[in-house]
Amino acid sequence: MEEDLLYHLGLSTKSVNFRKEFGDVKFVCVAGSAYRIKAFAQMLAKEAGLSTDLPNLAADGGRFVLYKVGAVLAADHGMGAPSISILLHEMFKLLHYAHCTDVTFIRLGTSGGIGVEPGTLVITTEALDTAFESFYSLRILGKTVKRPAPLDPNLADELYELAQTLPDNVPVVKGKTVCANDFYEEQARLDGAFCQFTESEKMAYLNQACSMGVSNFEMECTCFAAQCYLAGVRASLFYVVAAIVCVTLVNRLESDQVRLNPKTYARIQQLPGQLVLALLRKHNALSV
Amino acid sequence: MEEDLLYHLGLSTKSVNFRKEFGDVKFVCVAGSAYRIKAFAQMLAKEAGLSTDLPNLAADGGRFVLYKVGAVLAADHGMGAPSISILLHEMFKLLHYAHCTDVTFIRLGTSGGIGVEPGTLVITTEALDTAFESFYSLRILGKTVKRPAPLDPNLADELYELAQTLPDNVPVVKGKTVCANDFYEEQARLDGAFCQFTESEKMAYLNQACSMGVSNFEMECTCFAAQCYLAGVRASLFYVVAAIVCVTLVNRLESDQVRLNPKTYARIQQLPGQLVLALLRKHNALSV
Repeated sequence: MEEDLLYHLGLSTKSVNFRKEFGDVKFVCVAGSAYRIKAFAQMLAKEAGLSTDLPNLAADGGRFVLYKVGAVLAADHGMGAPSISILLHEMFKLLHYAHCTDVTFIRLGTSGGIGVEPGTLVITTEALDTAFESFYSLRILGKTVKRPAPLDPNLADELYELAQTLPDNVPVVKGKTVCANDFYEEQARLDGAFCQFTESEKMAYLNQACSMGVSNFEMECTCFAAQCYLAGVRASLFYVVAAIVCVTLVNRLESDQVRLNPKTYARIQQLPGQLVLALLRKHNALSV
Repeated sequence: MEEDLLYHLGLSTKSVNFRKEFGDVKFVCVAGSAYRIKAFAQMLAKEAGLSTDLPNLAADGGRFVLYKVGAVLAADHGMGAPSISILLHEMFKLLHYAHCTDVTFIRLGTSGGIGVEPGTLVITTEALDTAFESFYSLRILGKTVKRPAPLDPNLADELYELAQTLPDNVPVVKGKTVCANDFYEEQARLDGAFCQFTESEKMAYLNQACSMGVSNFEMECTCFAAQCYLAGVRASLFYVVAAIVCVTLVNRLESDQVRLNPKTYARIQQLPGQLVLALLRKHNALSV
């Protein structure tokens, strides 16, 4: 193509020198919320001794935020697999045009815990769909395609070890994570606008998840894992390793609703970012 | 429940008097982009002679924007079915707690056209999935559930008639709309980060869609139609009619990429809003 417009990022190969702007990127950190990832990027900027007045590099697209600090790109991905899949396609193309060679992708999320206390960090060992299979399913030209969704076990171990060094004895577990395509019905919540199952059916499903080693539910893990794997290993765009670290906001075996006081909520929302900051420090990713 | 926190809207039954704040709502207008729906809400405020400095009523949730002008609520829903499904669950609960009786839901979208020129308004007659069936599929407790996704034919006709009164002879068609769970591979684009089909396979799929009366592809229509239908008809939360009006940004039979100059892009993005404004005027929805 003469020009490639990364439409949702608002970045075009005609007007942006990708190699110059993004050639040094080694880490891509993504989160659902634009506010949360902005706060994370500002924390990185402060750590690097830079201004925290960071420009949104994806402002022209009108859909995502994108910040760069040192060798780190930070972006929001919205909620759900379709939204993160758009970000990933365009992020992979950005890194490809920038001639990046090896890149670590980390999703920093919030999630509903299964059998763990609110405020627990879950480092994902396996990304499952809501039938507890490790696939990202999409339909291409009308036909279902199931893509394997592996994550990097070494990076998960590294994050787990680093989490032991966080202050205040933050609880941390390694566990399986389920990707749902909805917050209410697909996550077996009874408190949506409608619900067509009983409390005992809900508990049977969640207990089954728990017995299989599931520690949390969120809405992007299979897509994130599968598309990173495909970009790195099969499409060989560049070498990719990927990890997911989420904090739990509720123990779903006890409640459907998130009931945290604002102070606790503000504190625990930052935990994935604090862990990833420790990783970035270790790898000198913030030096400019 | 003693308290119901609409988590992503950041509105709780403990701190918000839903009946007082939202009891007069008759129209809910939603769009993917926060910027676009804000511009729409500001246009409504101007029309109603109100300040355009509208507060985001969902600011505490940190995920969506929500504005109220007269009898109209306007919100963004992000990209994809999982994201809009969250907004709809919480919007239905909001309207239920507000004791609203009959409510018209309209999605104002952007889309990729099939066989129509960029800048065409498409009023959806039927919402299809990427296998061209009119269902919203979700997986509840691990089992697939297929929900019918009908839209209101009278409201579609009313919008179509009103569209004839828009200035500059805006092209408008009634047609079927396909909901994809991704922007690239599921919409048969060749220009994603990776692609596992050929140009001729792509064209065969798009031509099949065209021959079945499909006018455009977007990413929310089946979920929007099915959940509105379920809320209104089956769950009987309140009486709901729903419609979708999207503008096309590209003719997918000619290009995968959106190639519009900024001026044209800015103009045609506003067309769904201008049409819905005409509807709201007709129904006196903006008087305070």
